[in-house]
Amino acid sequence: MRYDFKVKSIDISAQGKYIIAFHEDDAADLDVSRDDRIKVKFKRKEVTCTANITNTFVKKGQIGLFKEVKDVLNVKNGDIVKIEPVEKPESVRYIKKKIDGYELKEKEIHSIINDIMEDNLTDIETAAFITATSIRGMSDREIIALTRAIVKSGDTIRLKKKIVVDKHSIGGVPGNRTTLIIVPVIAAAGLTIAKTSSRSITSPAGTADTMEVLAPVALNKRQILETVRKCNACIVWGGAVSLAAADDKIIRIEHPLKIDSKPNLISSILAKKKAVGATHCLIDISVGHGAKVRTRKEAEDLARKFIRIGKQLGIKIHCIITPGFDPVGDAMGPALEAREILRLYEGKPANPEVLEKGLTMAGILLEMVGKAKKGKGYEMARGIFESGKAYKKLKQIIKAQGGDPNIKSDDINVGSYRYVLKAGRQGRIHYMNTAVLSTAARLAGAPHNKGAGIMLHVEKGDKIKRGQKILTVYAESRRKLEAAKQFLKKNSPIELTRIVLEEFDEDKGLIVYT
Amino acid sequence: MRYDFKVKSIDISAQGKYIIAFHEDDAADLDVSRDDRIKVKFKRKEVTCTANITNTFVKKGQIGLFKEVKDVLNVKNGDIVKIEPVEKPESVRYIKKKIDGYELKEKEIHSIINDIMEDNLTDIETAAFITATSIRGMSDREIIALTRAIVKSGDTIRLKKKIVVDKHSIGGVPGNRTTLIIVPVIAAAGLTIAKTSSRSITSPAGTADTMEVLAPVALNKRQILETVRKCNACIVWGGAVSLAAADDKIIRIEHPLKIDSKPNLISSILAKKKAVGATHCLIDISVGHGAKVRTRKEAEDLARKFIRIGKQLGIKIHCIITPGFDPVGDAMGPALEAREILRLYEGKPANPEVLEKGLTMAGILLEMVGKAKKGKGYEMARGIFESGKAYKKLKQIIKAQGGDPNIKSDDINVGSYRYVLKAGRQGRIHYMNTAVLSTAARLAGAPHNKGAGIMLHVEKGDKIKRGQKILTVYAESRRKLEAAKQFLKKNSPIELTRIVLEEFDEDKGLIVYT
Repeated sequence: MRYDFKVKSIDISAQGKYIIAFHEDDAADLDVSRDDRIKVKFKRKEVTCTANITNTFVKKGQIGLFKEVKDVLNVKNGDIVKIEPVEKPESVRYIKKKIDGYELKEKEIHSIINDIMEDNLTDIETAAFITATSIRGMSDREIIALTRAIVKSGDTIRLKKKIVVDKHSIGGVPGNRTTLIIVPVIAAAGLTIAKTSSRSITSPAGTADTMEVLAPVALNKRQILETVRKCNACIVWGGAVSLAAADDKIIRIEHPLKIDSKPNLISSILAKKKAVGATHCLIDISVGHGAKVRTRKEAEDLARKFIRIGKQLGIKIHCIITPGFDPVGDAMGPALEAREILRLYEGKPANPEVLEKGLTMAGILLEMVGKAKKGKGYEMARGIFESGKAYKKLKQIIKAQGGDPNIKSDDINVGSYRYVLKAGRQGRIHYMNTAVLSTAARLAGAPHNKGAGIMLHVEKGDKIKRGQKILTVYAESRRKLEAAKQFLKKNSPIELTRIVLEEFDEDKGLIVYT
Repeated sequence: MRYDFKVKSIDISAQGKYIIAFHEDDAADLDVSRDDRIKVKFKRKEVTCTANITNTFVKKGQIGLFKEVKDVLNVKNGDIVKIEPVEKPESVRYIKKKIDGYELKEKEIHSIINDIMEDNLTDIETAAFITATSIRGMSDREIIALTRAIVKSGDTIRLKKKIVVDKHSIGGVPGNRTTLIIVPVIAAAGLTIAKTSSRSITSPAGTADTMEVLAPVALNKRQILETVRKCNACIVWGGAVSLAAADDKIIRIEHPLKIDSKPNLISSILAKKKAVGATHCLIDISVGHGAKVRTRKEAEDLARKFIRIGKQLGIKIHCIITPGFDPVGDAMGPALEAREILRLYEGKPANPEVLEKGLTMAGILLEMVGKAKKGKGYEMARGIFESGKAYKKLKQIIKAQGGDPNIKSDDINVGSYRYVLKAGRQGRIHYMNTAVLSTAARLAGAPHNKGAGIMLHVEKGDKIKRGQKILTVYAESRRKLEAAKQFLKKNSPIELTRIVLEEFDEDKGLIVYT
């Protein structure tokens, strides 16, 4: 079957998707339903599209083409195109197989990832796949296949070094900027690390957002290779190079559902490590309310799985489980975090938490590759930091990425609109609500407005008095400062110690307070 | 937060969804991602929309409004609207809860169905819900709540009768037109039945498609009530009245994934029965390759569940399990099926299978409500049919729905383009491939072209000779006849008896042939 239709151009982008529209009579006649796949041909070009049905915009005999389709076929209004229904891609059968609880073969997983990359699957189909892997779980073999398929979906960076180290923090913890300590220390010790970081999705800043205050991070592959050649290291935004490209498409589905599929988490992380050729990798799993991993048990299972699967993929993995109940350090927001990091390098007063965590992790990496003896890694890392070698390395990286190596903490601009939140009553701080802090910092404009964010003036466990300063919100506009302020008036970022922690009720079951 | 944007009108329908588009700079500034929910306000009207991000179609400071949004707000190009980000609906948390394996409360299920009805959920979220219910299953309490929520989502028909009977065949079996026998027999016996049927989704015809050859089926609520008042019965298309409206939206997600979620199947069927006030219902569960239910065990579990849940909903349910390996009768396609049914009423030669199955089921219904003694139902049903009372009732229903009561089987137009498929070799027919038959009939134009379809000339078990007529394809155009013919040349609709049925292989495991 093949039929002719007259093009009605719809000059709107369909977000990168190939969408066409039929009149409902034609759709019935062709036996085409919404979301069916249709091949559209013009001259020697063809493209597989998803069908929409309408009775308002196109007439019988017309086919409405959104911008992407029009562009790829190079047609104009009134041209005649040929259409041909196509079968669903095979991968839809494999998705159904996963829903039904069967293990997928390597080539079936490759077929799914391939179709995700080529936009052959609808949101419905991709969401079903992600939901099914989240509920059914995946075997080690499946996760390995998924990781390899994700690596294959994108570009790779080949450093031609025998040892390439890497680190990853499983996120959700505000202020966790250890990368900006670890990478300079490790590289100053002579190790190679091509660190790709992410921008924030839900927190006040990702490492890429914070590093961007000091230097450009949207480097292409050639620039990354050049930076690593010069410095043995880089701290760049992974999104600018299409490493592990399928991962972004999977995250787009997971994110709105807040699905934290462990199989997808493992393959997402390891695919990025594999794509930069990492041979040794330290993974920091934070556990806590606000963090992605909620319990110690879950974290331990995850750690074991990372190590097993890493081994199969040729990456030596070491995991640490860290507390993820509270923010790391005092700063939240790109400029505020970058300023605190520089203060640590400059030897000025600052919360030492990020530094301590960073040196601990750098020490483990030094031990993993045999640079330091067992138990001597932290000492070596601290020595490198205190000698000024790490600071010199940071400046070298900033310069190689195109930033100003002489930038000082005092040069960093933070938001000039400020609001100080004070304690409404006295007590001891039981915990800091990281979700409230993150939302407030984002309402203030972080991470898009670099100078926006929050500085904490108290820590968990502190005894506070009524009227004591809890935090300062920074914003770049009065409007956004106001939004954060209103939010903080309704939602407390701190919980004081209480007598009752949990409560049961006949109707509702367990009511958890903390 | 609330901000002003200038309307850029996008004069295209977004398939009933409320879609808006922001420039990517505004999206970043507002911290809005694709698929986020945004409230748009103009004068005293407001509507919750889903955000798209673009950098080609709208400029900074503009908001692109698709037709549905423009219409509901009554704005024009250049008007200033206010926007306000809104939180995800609560039901997204309940979907996550189901993914995580927890039982949902009645009000949580109502909240999900409500948001599905109001288009507050994205395809991603709805697909995750359907996938999760399919994998996790649902408790009786959840299915009952889901059924009630689906009933509430649509209109209801109140017949003010003490007993209202109904029947449902769980489909996928071509030619299964028992409704056209059962309803007239039952109504002639003095029982009330307001039968709503569906159009076909994947088979050559649904009961509504076949009935439409004899009389209009797209009746509104008032017309249905009027028909039932006159005849004690009707045979209409359920889609024309919005009974159990949420069901259509759920099916739109299930269909492309071929998910047959048992909980959704049960609530979908019972919601429709509840919406017409059924007190007694016979459910016909076909088992076989081509049918929705594959094994006896599955069918038995389903039957028990139907009965349990029906009881809770106040519907007395009786289930029969029937073979669904082969088509019922010889005809596939609306006009061909309608012609065969009329031949049965007229007493002309025709395959008696549909009649036998219909009378058996009518007999069970007569026994269920006490019209016939135990074991005497079939006899009574046959008596009613043979006396001509059922035929009279059918004519009465056809007339009340607006059709010609004097229509004869010979008046029915069937496709004039025909192709006869002949046997390529001799043997005994092991089984008829219903999937191949359905696809061929649909390629020939069924159900949209009423006269298109297939007549079978052989049955399972028949010994056939090389060159013997297997079937005739009917079409209303040469092009469609050709499509069906080409398909049948590549895919055989019959399987002859063979020596080897299954085969094992070291690499691939079990290879199933039949």
